[in-house]
Amino acid sequence: MPGALVTRFISAIEAKDLDAAAAMVSDDLVYDNVPVGIATGPDGLRGTLGPFMAGASEVDWVVHRQTESGDLASGVVMNERVDRFRFAGGWLELPVAGVFVIEDGVITVWRDFIDLGTMQQQLAATSG
Amino acid sequence: MPGALVTRFISAIEAKDLDAAAAMVSDDLVYDNVPVGIATGPDGLRGTLGPFMAGASEVDWVVHRQTESGDLASGVVMNERVDRFRFAGGWLELPVAGVFVIEDGVITVWRDFIDLGTMQQQLAATSG
Repeated sequence: MPGALVTRFISAIEAKDLDAAAAMVSDDLVYDNVPVGIATGPDGLRGTLGPFMAGASEVDWVVHRQTESGDLASGVVMNERVDRFRFAGGWLELPVAGVFVIEDGVITVWRDFIDLGTMQQQLAATSG
Repeated sequence: MPGALVTRFISAIEAKDLDAAAAMVSDDLVYDNVPVGIATGPDGLRGTLGPFMAGASEVDWVVHRQTESGDLASGVVMNERVDRFRFAGGWLELPVAGVFVIEDGVITVWRDFIDLGTMQQQLAATSG
């Protein structure tokens, strides 16, 4: 089921295992942080998430709800999350809604809906 | 299915029929525009959406993807949308991810994830 793939993907991120996460996305992944912009492919994933992970002593993404349709050949997964990063100054906690499109067993689109102002405020408060 | 209820709910909003929309939510509805805050119940729904509808000559909410779990007794629906309002100065277009919790045939939680900066920018550009 496509939801299980997304659950494994998020577990890899929490483990700061970017190699494992990158192996679950397509070469032409569209990784869209809606107000920020689009990164592309496994390198875009690493370039966006890498700096957050490097600065965080813990990564804890809490999935409150997750729904799915289709299958691993062609599926959609959506979840409601709070993405938490433990920085020097404390826990950054960001409410997120995520949309994942799965094709042929890999994630081809990952679109996260966040409020940029909240993220900037949280970054400033936790940079230590 | 809970997704069909949400589809009807959004159709009522597009028709600017707040009576019909309010009839599909619980008395204790939690209506949460994540960066803005929470409104409660049918009156909170009317108070939040009413001014937008009053100022818009057309309301067009485009649902790009929708997934669901459970049933009308206890279900969750999520969708990826672009909420469009035609104001005097043009179309406001806001990317949104929505989470709907359904219990006993009505919507009890509606949580929309938006970027507040984008909404403010769009409001300024379309106020005419």
